[in-house]
Amino acid sequence: MSWMQREIGLSPRPRGFHLITREVVEAMPELGAIRVGLLHLLIQHTSASLALNENASPDVRRDFEAWSDAAVPERARYWTHTVEGPDDMPAHVKAALFGPSLMLPVSDGRLALGTWQGIYLCEHRDRGGSRSLVATLWGEPS
Amino acid sequence: MSWMQREIGLSPRPRGFHLITREVVEAMPELGAIRVGLLHLLIQHTSASLALNENASPDVRRDFEAWSDAAVPERARYWTHTVEGPDDMPAHVKAALFGPSLMLPVSDGRLALGTWQGIYLCEHRDRGGSRSLVATLWGEPS
Amino acid sequence: MSWMQREIGLSPRPRGFHLITREVVEAMPELGAIRVGLLHLLIQHTSASLALNENASPDVRRDFEAWSDAAVPERARYWTHTVEGPDDMPAHVKAALFGPSLMLPVSDGRLALGTWQGIYLCEHRDRGGSRSLVATLWGEPS
Repeated sequence: MSWMQREIGLSPRPRGFHLITREVVEAMPELGAIRVGLLHLLIQHTSASLALNENASPDVRRDFEAWSDAAVPERARYWTHTVEGPDDMPAHVKAALFGPSLMLPVSDGRLALGTWQGIYLCEHRDRGGSRSLVATLWGEPS
Repeated sequence: MSWMQREIGLSPRPRGFHLITREVVEAMPELGAIRVGLLHLLIQHTSASLALNENASPDVRRDFEAWSDAAVPERARYWTHTVEGPDDMPAHVKAALFGPSLMLPVSDGRLALGTWQGIYLCEHRDRGGSRSLVATLWGEPS
Repeated sequence: MSWMQREIGLSPRPRGFHLITREVVEAMPELGAIRVGLLHLLIQHTSASLALNENASPDVRRDFEAWSDAAVPERARYWTHTVEGPDDMPAHVKAALFGPSLMLPVSDGRLALGTWQGIYLCEHRDRGGSRSLVATLWGEPS
């Protein structure tokens, strides 16, 4: 049994959905030594989230942003928490909808994802700045 | 400490929300030997998802489908990724909303779910075909 | 390696989003003895959920409720499961959207959350009554 925990710093991204699979895997070289286990990722913020979805077409990520903006609209009449700008409260709701964490199985030293699955950083603020992940890896060594 | 990981193949289902608790439990007989632990399920697809909800009334599962179709509509003006059909991009969004995985506590050899909780396979495509889960079980043996 | 599992009973709350971080941490004093690990929380119900979001402003939690009610409306024409009242079926959908569980990293005896992150009990019924969590903690002792 082996445990590893590390903070992964993500550089600022524009508002939208961004593929970060490679960045996460490269930050976790210890993955290679796990026969069977799990990798947990938590984003330590309340206006950005993590998702697992289609890793090929940039259209898909653009449409995620378009749907999010339609479903959680800025300047809706029911918002009262508006002091941090019109993008702030919608960002909180989007962050909770997509969720703050991912749990990914590890198999023979690699993430056991489907062919088309990639890790998304979902940046819901106009200027969210750097984002921080806590990565926790544990499992049975090879 | 004991680890077990297995792929569970699910036969094709029509679009909608389907109860698969029994199928999952029967595929994981090792559950019975765990005193305290966890079962993780990941669906390796980007247009189907897993949820935990009411296990009794088929009405509830039908209403999940009705709400999903209203909240993530086909043929909305903002979709650009339309090449794989009108059900494709909504399926990606629904999959990320309900989420690709479940983590379920195991207690004295059984899933420690509430009385009314059951595992849903949420099939968001018209013809999604077979779906594959990666099940990872670990914990303290009885 | 150490495992701990316990049921945490939550007293009845009114419909809405409620901060329960302190209540959860106080129910899990064993957190203090974990160097690196994880805490899993499952709510054993199908009409309440758990989320991780902004822990400071009550406005944010009130706006979560307002958005949820707009996005998953009572008395929509597509509901067929109405026998348990107009708040019941929307509560099931909201519960699946925000999700039944949280997985939180533990680092040096404390939850490794971001500064602004707090645990929400999302009560989606008008009178949901007491709610029960299964908390599972495991990790490497200090």
